Order: sequence, then structure tokens, then C-alpha cells
Amino acid sequence: MKKKDVWRIGVAGLGTVGAGLLELVSRRPHFAPGGGLVSVTGVSARNRAAKRSVDIAAIPWFDNPVDLARSTDNDIFVELIGGSEGPAKAAVEAALAMGKPVVTANKALIACHGAKLAALAEANGATLLFEAAVMGGTPAVKMLREAMVGDEVELVAGILNGTCNYILSEMEASGRDFRDVLADAQRLGYAEADPTTDIGGFDAGHKITILAALAFGCAPTYPAAEVEGIDQVELLDIRLAKDLGYRIKLVATASRSAGGVSVRVHPALTPLDHPLARAGGALNALFIEGRTIGRIFIQGPGAGAGPTAAAVAADIADVISGAVRPVFQAPATTLEPFIPIDQSRATGRAYIRLLVKDEPGVIAAVSESLADAGVSIDSFLQKSVEGADGVPIVLTTHTAPEAVLSEAVRRMSALPALLAPPRVIRIARI
Amino acid sequence: MKKKDVWRIGVAGLGTVGAGLLELVSRRPHFAPGGGLVSVTGVSARNRAAKRSVDIAAIPWFDNPVDLARSTDNDIFVELIGGSEGPAKAAVEAALAMGKPVVTANKALIACHGAKLAALAEANGATLLFEAAVMGGTPAVKMLREAMVGDEVELVAGILNGTCNYILSEMEASGRDFRDVLADAQRLGYAEADPTTDIGGFDAGHKITILAALAFGCAPTYPAAEVEGIDQVELLDIRLAKDLGYRIKLVATASRSAGGVSVRVHPALTPLDHPLARAGGALNALFIEGRTIGRIFIQGPGAGAGPTAAAVAADIADVISGAVRPVFQAPATTLEPFIPIDQSRATGRAYIRLLVKDEPGVIAAVSESLADAGVSIDSFLQKSVEGADGVPIVLTTHTAPEAVLSEAVRRMSALPALLAPPRVIRIARI
Repeated sequence: MKKKDVWRIGVAGLGTVGAGLLELVSRRPHFAPGGGLVSVTGVSARNRAAKRSVDIAAIPWFDNPVDLARSTDNDIFVELIGGSEGPAKAAVEAALAMGKPVVTANKALIACHGAKLAALAEANGATLLFEAAVMGGTPAVKMLREAMVGDEVELVAGILNGTCNYILSEMEASGRDFRDVLADAQRLGYAEADPTTDIGGFDAGHKITILAALAFGCAPTYPAAEVEGIDQVELLDIRLAKDLGYRIKLVATASRSAGGVSVRVHPALTPLDHPLARAGGALNALFIEGRTIGRIFIQGPGAGAGPTAAAVAADIADVISGAVRPVFQAPATTLEPFIPIDQSRATGRAYIRLLVKDEPGVIAAVSESLADAGVSIDSFLQKSVEGADGVPIVLTTHTAPEAVLSEAVRRMSALPALLAPPRVIRIARI
Repeated sequence: MKKKDVWRIGVAGLGTVGAGLLELVSRRPHFAPGGGLVSVTGVSARNRAAKRSVDIAAIPWFDNPVDLARSTDNDIFVELIGGSEGPAKAAVEAALAMGKPVVTANKALIACHGAKLAALAEANGATLLFEAAVMGGTPAVKMLREAMVGDEVELVAGILNGTCNYILSEMEASGRDFRDVLADAQRLGYAEADPTTDIGGFDAGHKITILAALAFGCAPTYPAAEVEGIDQVELLDIRLAKDLGYRIKLVATASRSAGGVSVRVHPALTPLDHPLARAGGALNALFIEGRTIGRIFIQGPGAGAGPTAAAVAADIADVISGAVRPVFQAPATTLEPFIPIDQSRATGRAYIRLLVKDEPGVIAAVSESLADAGVSIDSFLQKSVEGADGVPIVLTTHTAPEAVLSEAVRRMSALPALLAPPRVIRIARI
């Protein structure tokens, strides 16, 4: 990259992050240290006339983001459209194909097509950066891509979706159930009108896929992630888990072992005094565990126009610095998809909640079905709930093969005293 | 920086970090992503024959680190000698003067001579990196230098000295006093034989000076830091602070306001549930507060051969990436020293402990002397200690000008019922 006095950027997508970036550049055009002036020389969005917090009248307009990506009137293309397919993908490909650096906040695009885009970028000598795709203003991508290269990362685990974290925190604080809190979050703008991507765990799945690729030097392999959302988390479980010393969080985990890589997103019980349990509201938080360094913990805002635009700006400054690195720790031509670990060999601990008839011998029957499957109990709690049909029993298990836990749950499901299917939530291994 | 297949490094200083780096490079010579092989082609240390965990027989030896720095047989000079003057400074200057990139873990050197070295580096087109100088394996430098450029940093506050944090944690956990725990720490190798640099707060002072320079784009200005160590912290204060809901930590703070920059290291009361209070043992922890991003928290190991060597390796990978950035956020020719804020306008809260005679009217006299000075009390605790002469009284104040707090303490010191001078510890503003 040559030294320039002015860096011209084209910005496609003018939602809250795009508008935030335009404001940042207009307020601090010299934000790139020692790198000259940054200037927005082209914009594109779905609707030119939409009401925005910034005035775009003086900036050249492009109806088609692909035309903006191809324009020689900008040096860096910034993609803030979103979505793994369609115009976002087409525009990013167009820019990379002509060797133009791309900065994007698009987690779905990178999680689903990251390896191909990395190959396109590297073949054409272009940079492809995506700090804002994960944890908004909190630099998780930079940490894994640059700060941990002196070590071998073995585990990445964290809270990567602010909407889910907000909803779970609110359920606990207010004692209201999932649907109620979700409706409120939608009214307040903390959740989308269609919240599936967030509450279904798919957004966190995209993010942990990207972090896993950076941590382990693999191709991001989105369908390899096992994803479960928070829509089945009940207030009762949040309360009972707390009685046992845990808080339920949507935890995203990527770990590497000799057998392969495991990438998962699911609700999990975290000990109340654990930093992940203590990251409340819309915060994001992440542990990175290196073989030599040990554990590094990072926490910060995971979304919001300001923080996310600041992350995009940091990437623009990185482009300007001229740093040349492979997109995912190894040249794209050598990247391999994740080799998933053999799930039949996975082990873990579980929280199991049963609703049983209030009659003698039930506890004995539950204990027996666990013992018969070979699962030992760590803690046991029976608690009457006023006005409820039946009695909730909750227990946590010691570590056991997941196949054995499933067998134990199958046996319990067959007990005649059971009033509802058992509810199983994993206990985080953090 | 040209693309190379082999990057030759010269390593001066073969203590634990130097040996750790040699091990890392020998185990993972391809650690720099996409950047070719790293090879150690020269070493220097005080004593060639010293017993080491790595075999250096096959590596060319230099008696004088300046000769190693000047040698054309290495592309990157790594300085791990330590100390702000002498051979470390001479060798770093020699390398930079010939345009050779330098990676160092030397906090004293950067805190005391950072601006001049940055000017030398930039004049000769050389890179100067020092991630390992602050927080060991935890990338505080990279975060401030690169990830926060899209924002304006207003506050950096944290625990930057693992030895002090270990000693304070041990005092609380074991109920032993400072001298006892220090002696143990020295026996275990957690503290140096001459512990002044650590326990006097000077090490943390160097580190917060570097972080302040990166955060605010100033020249590091070491004598501008106000430094107080932990050697006056008594077990009694640790216990009484805890009764009031606080833990005493050695907190390093750099903040910027319209009036200038404040850089401080001193023992401070932190609320028990605050992440800084919860960072125990030898951990380091840091808050970075940006105007737009809000607060980012990072925690990890602050020392140790492995983590620190990994940080040095990350810097080597950064050199190899070819990134060109000013050393301290702005070209060295434009760097200005910190403008210290006017201390007479500083405000704060304080913990004050008095040892008084057990007689009527004492509390009234203490309260009056505070009220007369214009300080209002937040909490008040009187506690008998078995076998002690006199009664300890502790109180915390509301926010007041520091000059007013000093005046209140002066008035209390004159009370006839006082058995010892008042002990004042600030309450952290975090």
C-alpha cells in the first residue's frame, strides 16, 4: 500500500452503523494515526431519500453497491449492507476482484463465505478486514488474528449476542417470561421485528464460527456449528439455576482437541461468580485460552452505532497502515474446513429439570434411572412452586459422556410420575 | 518491508523471557501468519556460560549487545536486557539509527525515552514495538494503539503490577502483614531480591506512562506520573476496607480532561464487586474508556516467561506484516509531553483511618473537624480490635476537592485524642 495524503472510502449501507461511520469521519477525518485524511467519496443504500442522522447530499450516490465497489473514485470499500448473499456478497467480491481493500461488519457473509473471499482477496493482493463483525467495538478479531499468534489457542468461549444477553438478564431481573421481555425489547429497539437471527442463536453462531477460524487457522465453516437459541429458556429454569449457584447464558464456544474442532452455541449454566455470568445486559464478553499465555478475558459493548463504527474505523486505519496478513492466519489456499470432533466422545455436565407428581418414591425412581445409565449426581433440589401442578425436581450431574447423559434422560422420560418432558441445559465448561 | 522467506532475529538478554522466546521460535518457527520462517541468528547476554533452559551453543554469540544490534546478520533486533539506560538504550538506539526494526519488553526505557526513540525510529523508517512492556501476554498496547483509533480515549485504569497484586491478595487471604508476605513472595520468586521497583509503584508508573502516551497521543513523560507504592498498606486497612465493601488495590490511572492529563499510581479502595477488585493474585486488568465505545475491560497474565515471550512474538509478527504506524499515535516530531492537570482542582473521595483514645467526645471531635473543613461523610465505622491500644475509627468521605480533604486531615491530626497520624487511602474513581 502506498503512502497517501487522502484515503477515499466508499460506504455501502447507511443504517445506524453506516451513519455512525459518516459522523465519525466527518468529526475526525485524521483518525488513522499518521495516515493522512480519510474522506467519504461515495455512498450507496437501498433508499436515497430515507431519513438519516447525517446529511449525504454532498456525497456522490450509487444506486448499485457493486458500482460503488468497482468505482475508481474510492480506495477502500466499506460494506455495511449485511446478509450472507445478494448485493453485499456481490459488492465485496467486485471490490476484492480488482484488488481493492474491503472492510465489512457482515458476520453472516464472513461466516458463510469467508474462505472463498479470503482466497479472492489474497489472489488479488487485497486486504479483507471484519473487526466490527464480532463484538462490535470490542476488538476480539484483532486479538485472535494478531495478539495471539505467539501462542496456540485452545479455547474461545463467550457471550456474543447482546440481544439474547439483554433478554436473559431482564428475565432474571424482572421475573417476567421470555415472550414478555422479547416484546419489550422489540418495542425498545433492542431486538429486531423478526428476532429469529438473534434469539435462535444464529448470529452468535456466525460470530463464533469466525472466531474459531481465526483461533485455529481453519476455513470458517458455518454449517459445522451446533446452534441452539434461547427461545426455550423458561423463567423457572433461570430461578432454579440461581438457587443452585448458576446463571443461564447463551454461551458460544470453540475448542480444539486432537480429535478436531467443536463449535457450539447453546444456553448454558455458568457459575454466578464467573466473569461470563457477571456480564449482564447487552454486554459481550469473551475468554481466549492459549496454551502458553493462559486465559485472557475481554468484555465490552457488542453492538451500537458508535462502537461498531469505531471498529470499522480501526479496520480502515489497519488498511492504511499497509499491514499484510493472511485473512485467517494461514494463506487462503491452505485453509481446511473444521474437522468436527466425534460427538460420541464428547463429555459434559448437565442441569436436568423434571416436573413430577407429588407422590412417594418419585425421587428414588429418578435417582435410579440416572444410576442405571451410569450418571452421578452433583446436586439435587426439590422445590414446591405455589399453584403449580406437580413438583419441580432439579439436579446437576457430574461429568459424563453426552451419550450417557442422553440415555439417562431417555430413561427418566419414561417414568410414569413425569408430568412433562425433562428439560436439559448444559453446564458451561469454562 | 519486503516479503522475505526467512526473518533473522537478534536477541539481546537471555533471562526468562529471552529463553522463553528462543523456545517459542524453535518450537514454532512459522508463528508469523503467512510471513515465512523466523530464525534466531544472534544472541547476547551478560554471561555466556550461565545455566539456561535453552541450548545456545549453535547460535552466534555477541559479547556486546550494541554489536548485535548493528549486525547485518539479523533483520529484527529484540531487546530483553531491561533498564532505562546503559546497554539496553545504546543497543536500541544503534538498531533504530540504521533503520532496523526493534521489539522490546523494556517498560523503563520506553517510559523514560519513548519520544526520543520514536523520533529516531521514524526518522530512519524503522518500527519500534513494545507490547510485552505492559501486561505481559495481555495485549493492552495493541488495543490502545490500533483498536481504539476510531474513538477518543478518556480514561485508562487498571492493575498493572502482578507482584503488588499478589502481595495484596495474599495479605487479605492469609491475614499476614506486608513484610511477611513480601518475604514469602521473594522466596517463591514472585518478587525480586530488591523489590523497590515493584512495591514502590515505579514499575506500574512506567507502564501507565506508556499507556497514557498511546491513549492520548502524547510523548511518554515519566516524571509526570504521581507514584505511591504499597509498602505502607497495613493488614488492618485491608480488613477495615473490606468491612466497608472495598478491596485495596494498587491502581494505575491515566485520564484526560480539558485541563490536561493526570497519570497516577497509588493504593486505592475499589468496590468488592468491581472487576478490578476481583482480579486477584498475579493477574493484570485494565479498563479503557472511550468517548463513543464506552468501557472495554481486559484481564490476563501480566508477567511470566511464556506469556511475555508470546507478546514479543506477536510484535515480531507485526513487524513482518509490514504495518507502518507512528510509534505513539502521532508522528514523533509532533508529540508533546503530558500537560499535567492542575492538582489544586482535583477532586476525589477518601478512606481515612484514625486510631483514637477510647474516651467520650472523640467521634464528635472527628466529625466536627471534617465538617469544619467542608467534607461530608459517606460511611463511618468504629471497631474495637482486641489487644490494641486505642480504638480504630474509619470513615469514607463523599467527593471533595483534594485540597479540602488534605485540610480536613490536617485538622484531625491536631486532635488531642489521636494516638497515631491519620492513614488516608484514596477511593478509586472507576
